Amino acid sequence: MRTLKKAMFEICKSISDCIENVNDEEVNRLVELLIDGWKNNKRVFVTGAGRSGLMGRAFAMRLMHLGYEVFVVGETITPAVRKGDILIAISGSGTTKLVLETSKIAKEEIGAKVVAITSYPDSPLGKMADHVVVVKGRTKSDVESDYLSRQMRGEHSPLTPLGTLFESNVLAFLDGLIAELMERTGKKEKDLEQNHAKPDGVVAALKGEE
Amino acid sequence: MRTLKKAMFEICKSISDCIENVNDEEVNRLVELLIDGWKNNKRVFVTGAGRSGLMGRAFAMRLMHLGYEVFVVGETITPAVRKGDILIAISGSGTTKLVLETSKIAKEEIGAKVVAITSYPDSPLGKMADHVVVVKGRTKSDVESDYLSRQMRGEHSPLTPLGTLFESNVLAFLDGLIAELMERTGKKEKDLEQNHAKPDGVVAALKGEE
Amino acid sequence: MRTLKKAMFEICKSISDCIENVNDEEVNRLVELLIDGWKNNKRVFVTGAGRSGLMGRAFAMRLMHLGYEVFVVGETITPAVRKGDILIAISGSGTTKLVLETSKIAKEEIGAKVVAITSYPDSPLGKMADHVVVVKGRTKSDVESDYLSRQMRGEHSPLTPLGTLFESNVLAFLDGLIAELMERTGKKEKDLEQNHAKPDGVVAALKGEE
Amino acid sequence: MRTLKKAMFEICKSISDCIENVNDEEVNRLVELLIDGWKNNKRVFVTGAGRSGLMGRAFAMRLMHLGYEVFVVGETITPAVRKGDILIAISGSGTTKLVLETSKIAKEEIGAKVVAITSYPDSPLGKMADHVVVVKGRTKSDVESDYLSRQMRGEHSPLTPLGTLFESNVLAFLDGLIAELMERTGKKEKDLEQNHAKPDGVVAALKGEE
Repeated sequence: MRTLKKAMFEICKSISDCIENVNDEEVNRLVELLIDGWKNNKRVFVTGAGRSGLMGRAFAMRLMHLGYEVFVVGETITPAVRKGDILIAISGSGTTKLVLETSKIAKEEIGAKVVAITSYPDSPLGKMADHVVVVKGRTKSDVESDYLSRQMRGEHSPLTPLGTLFESNVLAFLDGLIAELMERTGKKEKDLEQNHAKPDGVVAALKGEE
Repeated sequence: MRTLKKAMFEICKSISDCIENVNDEEVNRLVELLIDGWKNNKRVFVTGAGRSGLMGRAFAMRLMHLGYEVFVVGETITPAVRKGDILIAISGSGTTKLVLETSKIAKEEIGAKVVAITSYPDSPLGKMADHVVVVKGRTKSDVESDYLSRQMRGEHSPLTPLGTLFESNVLAFLDGLIAELMERTGKKEKDLEQNHAKPDGVVAALKGEE
Repeated sequence: MRTLKKAMFEICKSISDCIENVNDEEVNRLVELLIDGWKNNKRVFVTGAGRSGLMGRAFAMRLMHLGYEVFVVGETITPAVRKGDILIAISGSGTTKLVLETSKIAKEEIGAKVVAITSYPDSPLGKMADHVVVVKGRTKSDVESDYLSRQMRGEHSPLTPLGTLFESNVLAFLDGLIAELMERTGKKEKDLEQNHAKPDGVVAALKGEE
Repeated sequence: MRTLKKAMFEICKSISDCIENVNDEEVNRLVELLIDGWKNNKRVFVTGAGRSGLMGRAFAMRLMHLGYEVFVVGETITPAVRKGDILIAISGSGTTKLVLETSKIAKEEIGAKVVAITSYPDSPLGKMADHVVVVKGRTKSDVESDYLSRQMRGEHSPLTPLGTLFESNVLAFLDGLIAELMERTGKKEKDLEQNHAKPDGVVAALKGEE
């Protein structure tokens, strides 16, 4: 079999392993954070560097489709984070300097809730976050050094498919999370309508009106 | 099983189906286009809208790591396309207006080579491209209308996992393509060193020096 | 005097000429559109290509600081335009294909209000817009061809300071517009508080609390 | 006179004052750094946060038109900085955390040359840079706190035209710098052709062929 297909199978297998490792409690708490935030007009901010950041943007786009007030850190019209807002910080290694810096300010100076999506719950990001969701895929050897520092020095992740597995896993996980949010908010459609100023998003989507 | 895991399994299954459908001839020609372009100092441009655009960027980032001169249409320092350059146009439906417009100018006015990555070889993008690579995942019902027009009108793709499958498939495909490029250029390391002004990318990567 | 200073003086003189040419009626109507839109929970969208697009983003950032719900066309979390929303389309020549395409969909398919900011009220963009504000600076010779087409072909604007004057003028104009909006909404602070769900932006800014 | 015009006149006056304060020695050294870098195939990287970052991108776009190999920190295909590359760091206050962090890694870990464009040569950025060019406009009161931290906390610059003056000044300065670079490289056209692999940029531009 050609290399391209072998690599695609490894990506498949990695997502499959990732599903096995998804911790239901971690997911439950994340879903509740997001639904509670939505009911209370809190906003969601997404941050990540490099390819993890691109996967975060793909997630932010879907949240926006669902009716969330969501922003990507660093884009033009991203407002100030407020107390109680949710910051989704994506970093396979949990050591990405820019993501860590942003998360610290959001949590310590402002009182936002930081959710870390990382392969390493014991990483600096994992330790400082209010809530950690483990998504496997980043291998131990990538963990040591910092992204910004590595980017500047040209020390990229290995270019074999393995270097790529965290990003594929996190995209599949976040798309699964969107499906879960749709189902959960569907059950509570009425509550959402009562509690939220702009019910046109999720609710209209579920009614098939979007 | 919870919705999140079900959705992740559907994504897995979709990538698996996509592998079955990968056409070896289409891939061979794409790989040769990219390697020939690289040897002859041609540049690669990537274009796509919405989430397909984000997957295109993730691919561009890896090509850059490999040593390619690659640009994303619409970013700040993207230069003019020149004759013989390669434009990778990503659109599940093959009808995205912005992607079509860019591809037409690149091909008809400048003489660049347009590669369409789409679920529909008979779409407007598929028909006008110099080379088509079929990546399954976009369902027929999404094909009718145009992205820019849909975005403006708020008619997003369905939010069920199904709406998401083209993007997961195309990310896995493009990561597989990177693995294939690495292997192929590894075989021809010496030729590349002779023909290319900046051999530090692919070659150094393969020597484990990057 | 050295070239750098001469060029800066030309930019200064160009902004000064631009002020002479600002049409008070055009500005009044734009200010009213923006304030009415804000009172009625309409959103503002900004579009522009190349350097004009960057100036548009600098304006969008300030509108966001003022409390507007504002989006940049093409960024990750930009939602669908809705009827009655305002699209600020910035193009010196008034012929930029991408800006024209976006403006047509917004106006004709959705019923948004299109405001053209251009040097040429008789350009295609000027003619199709609901409201035109003339900002001088783009010279006649730049008007003929289309941006996307020119970018693809590498026909950039001349690199002498003259090529740059529309962008400097439009930045000064839009910053002046922000000052005007602040003064105008200051006068009507109470009305704004009554009519708007989130008065914390403009009002808090004017109270010096931001 | 209406507020919009008053604000535009303040911007004009600010640019005019800025011209008075331009230090010829600082400019000479910057121009030489850029021309030497170009001759020796060094790349230019641009970094800045918020509106300063947008002005930096407008400058990067012009440098690209001139034929420079230039990148914006944070965009998709930005490669690793290498020893001897030039980092243009734009920060009115000279305290922007993200800009400082990037500059430190570039200088201390990689050996790139950092050029600070700031209102405050004694700021942290000014002190650590290899070369400082002072562009007036940022008032003392803005200097205390950090941008990322301020953005997170919602403490934006004042919205009066004064808050805006550094950005207008720096845009005019950088456009003037482009004019200067064109004139200087015109004088040395032959040398450039001999020393640079891709003379098509500056040289063709000066011949009126672009």
